[in-house]
Amino acid sequence: MDKIIMEHGSGGRATGKLIKEIFESQFDSDVLSEMEDAAVVPGDATIAMTTDSFVVTPLEFPGGDIGRLCICGTVNDLCMRGAVPKYITCGFILEEGCDIEQLRRLVKSMAATAKEAGVKIVAGDTKVIEGNGGIYINTAGVGFVPKGVDIKAKNAQDDDVIIVSGNVGDHHATVLSQRMGIKNTIESDNAPLQEMVGKLIANKIPVHVLRDVTRGGLATVLKELALASGLRFEILQEKLPVSAQVKSFCGLLGLDPLYMGNEGKMVAIVPKEYAAQAVEIIRGCKYGENACMIGAVNTPENDNEVGSLIMKTEIGGRRFLDILQGEGLPRIC
Amino acid sequence: MDKIIMEHGSGGRATGKLIKEIFESQFDSDVLSEMEDAAVVPGDATIAMTTDSFVVTPLEFPGGDIGRLCICGTVNDLCMRGAVPKYITCGFILEEGCDIEQLRRLVKSMAATAKEAGVKIVAGDTKVIEGNGGIYINTAGVGFVPKGVDIKAKNAQDDDVIIVSGNVGDHHATVLSQRMGIKNTIESDNAPLQEMVGKLIANKIPVHVLRDVTRGGLATVLKELALASGLRFEILQEKLPVSAQVKSFCGLLGLDPLYMGNEGKMVAIVPKEYAAQAVEIIRGCKYGENACMIGAVNTPENDNEVGSLIMKTEIGGRRFLDILQGEGLPRIC
Repeated sequence: MDKIIMEHGSGGRATGKLIKEIFESQFDSDVLSEMEDAAVVPGDATIAMTTDSFVVTPLEFPGGDIGRLCICGTVNDLCMRGAVPKYITCGFILEEGCDIEQLRRLVKSMAATAKEAGVKIVAGDTKVIEGNGGIYINTAGVGFVPKGVDIKAKNAQDDDVIIVSGNVGDHHATVLSQRMGIKNTIESDNAPLQEMVGKLIANKIPVHVLRDVTRGGLATVLKELALASGLRFEILQEKLPVSAQVKSFCGLLGLDPLYMGNEGKMVAIVPKEYAAQAVEIIRGCKYGENACMIGAVNTPENDNEVGSLIMKTEIGGRRFLDILQGEGLPRIC
Repeated sequence: MDKIIMEHGSGGRATGKLIKEIFESQFDSDVLSEMEDAAVVPGDATIAMTTDSFVVTPLEFPGGDIGRLCICGTVNDLCMRGAVPKYITCGFILEEGCDIEQLRRLVKSMAATAKEAGVKIVAGDTKVIEGNGGIYINTAGVGFVPKGVDIKAKNAQDDDVIIVSGNVGDHHATVLSQRMGIKNTIESDNAPLQEMVGKLIANKIPVHVLRDVTRGGLATVLKELALASGLRFEILQEKLPVSAQVKSFCGLLGLDPLYMGNEGKMVAIVPKEYAAQAVEIIRGCKYGENACMIGAVNTPENDNEVGSLIMKTEIGGRRFLDILQGEGLPRIC
């Protein structure tokens, strides 16, 4: 049997066999292998919870795959609240005809990424639907929030500095290249960010806001944060970290890297006096070597600037940026 | 705009509008409306976690809909570990063209069911894929396990009694009727079971095992429990609660209610001396009026009986039952 058939979703013997052979062998969590309806795990005083569904095509791409992506996405969402990611659940929706060997590779990738991120996959579910061999994965996660940590969108304050943890646009450019059949050396940046967040907190950086740069890109993320705080966010175009390949790819296609999603980058907003130290910490982490300060948060000077995102362009202009309008094709996660 | 278009999945303005108008207005949780990447909620010493994806068609059926179903499914999975269900995340995968008015009804149904079950919807995600207007929903949940409660499949013991909380087969027969265009008065039993589980625990019934009767039906569930415990499960055909309508529906189509799924029924395995009281408690709950004892757990008398499920038939025979083989068409959850 090398393809998924409807019977794999019946809840009977074929489902059991699929779970045993594909999932259980990779996700070696004691909790998961009890095969109960719900996992029972140790808790903590304050928990963070999140969920994300992943529907990207192609399922595998340079630098990653939907398996790595779905673990990183949920790990990172938990990290963005300052939580230590702990437990992940995964729900697979498989289209009939999906390739079992590929599924096996993706599950292996999930397991490796979970290990890297220090999370346990504790519960799962599999459904099969009619279709053309597609794979959709939902992951939900629980993390523990350390005492005293309170990181959220509206916490940005006057005089804070805006840091981005590395080059933007890579994941989006990778998926787009694959979909368009364009050959280049761009690779997805999909990566778990628990190391850099953990080290910022361990080093007592009073982080105000964290947000991963995903769908909608850096501009959408920053504009949403500006709206949440009611302050003025100002970024410098010359400081934006974009790799030479992504810059030329975007130039060719008329795309703006500011609106292109990543899956392993975050924005950190910290008080000015901690900014240099924060950048240094992030740069010392596996996925943070290109971290840099890109702007500042300030009190608006007029009504027009309340909740605004302004970019000082390289030629000295001021451009008001809004959240992404229309569709950010293709689906990148 | 009355149909979902790809732009609704972009992560930009259209996504924001959809979330605000459809989801936020119904799910009035303080936590959800913070619109963060992850929800931060109070925790407890021991947590239960589960996930399920729902892919049933039709999306609405007599007695329920996929919205009610996805909340009940996750609530019930948590209950089956003795946990008090607390927080739910939901991930929507919407096919392009899906009807927004119907989505609104389903979300309303989710909100009402969450309220009934006493859970908060704390995080969500929406993706849009190509397709024909389908709606798939993943729910993941967290519950708190009361101190001293340890309910799991392998806890069944010699001399325990097997209780089922009501008539079996209703949900499956409902969905099948809808798919086949058969007119009858059968309604889905989709319901949250936190009341009966909470009352069993509050009344200090030392429950050994709980399991909701879903895909695969009662026989599959009991056979899995028998295998987990290594004991012999024996049930009496004459005791099985099946409504007259479902019985005649199954008779007509040659179906076996033992293998037909429910979405609001559970099996409880308790020590013999507590069985009568447990049945009485379940019968006093909203969805438990037809609860009854259907069999017993015993030590196997020979190797052949280890992990066996045996049904004493109405005509005096002994039938070894196995888990569902082949596909339990149609998709019921």
